[in-house]
Amino acid sequence: MNCIFCNIVEHKAHSEILYESENVLSFLDINPVNFGHTLVITKKHYGDFISVPKNELAHVIKAVQTIAGVIKTKLNCDGFNIVINNGIAAGQTVKHFHFHIIPRFHNDDFRFKLNLKKYSDNLMKEYADKIRAELKFEGTF
Amino acid sequence: MNCIFCNIVEHKAHSEILYESENVLSFLDINPVNFGHTLVITKKHYGDFISVPKNELAHVIKAVQTIAGVIKTKLNCDGFNIVINNGIAAGQTVKHFHFHIIPRFHNDDFRFKLNLKKYSDNLMKEYADKIRAELKFEGTF
Repeated sequence: MNCIFCNIVEHKAHSEILYESENVLSFLDINPVNFGHTLVITKKHYGDFISVPKNELAHVIKAVQTIAGVIKTKLNCDGFNIVINNGIAAGQTVKHFHFHIIPRFHNDDFRFKLNLKKYSDNLMKEYADKIRAELKFEGTF
Repeated sequence: MNCIFCNIVEHKAHSEILYESENVLSFLDINPVNFGHTLVITKKHYGDFISVPKNELAHVIKAVQTIAGVIKTKLNCDGFNIVINNGIAAGQTVKHFHFHIIPRFHNDDFRFKLNLKKYSDNLMKEYADKIRAELKFEGTF
């Protein structure tokens, strides 16, 4: 399997690495939404968010928070988005789990194109019931 | 302070609650990008992602993963986005920390409007250096 992010982890591909620990690697996205756009990945290869073991997820989110805080301070941005795209339909292009940290500025040209839906009648409860049915015994996190 | 999400936590405001634990609450967004659009919050009020204690973040991301897995299965979506908007410039509207889980379908009408930047010459390294300078002693997550 030839995975560009695995190659970066193994230092076989160049990148601007920002942070490295036992479990986590962070580096600049080469196609930034705004300059300073950063990726945070598990060093181990997992194809998507769903397949990452929960203890590794905990490491990664802590690193994401620390790195996002530094980005906010050092780049003096007005805010940031944290994004995971899971699946091609959601815009995932590299099949190695990663968080995006996207620095944001008032009046920059990154936008979510939204067409918000409206739940009619009982539809919201129907959706909730579908999801809740599988969750009711899992209140442990 | 009148916070709509705190009111939901305290069951003073109605919502379609999907999951509840000691630290975490999840419920449907009333203005969904797609039906089933879900929020996952800390029960305690933190204004944004940066201010959440790391142990609570670990709880939340584990819940997000479990709930996203159920959404994917039960709504049979093609993918999903996990999003945190931090700050008004990033689209944060409710100042109580929350993750979005957005179910996605091939050819739905949610898009990121991107205008990708290009790093010229030494600029990528300059950005990396700014961020790295603050991170080099923090390889612990």
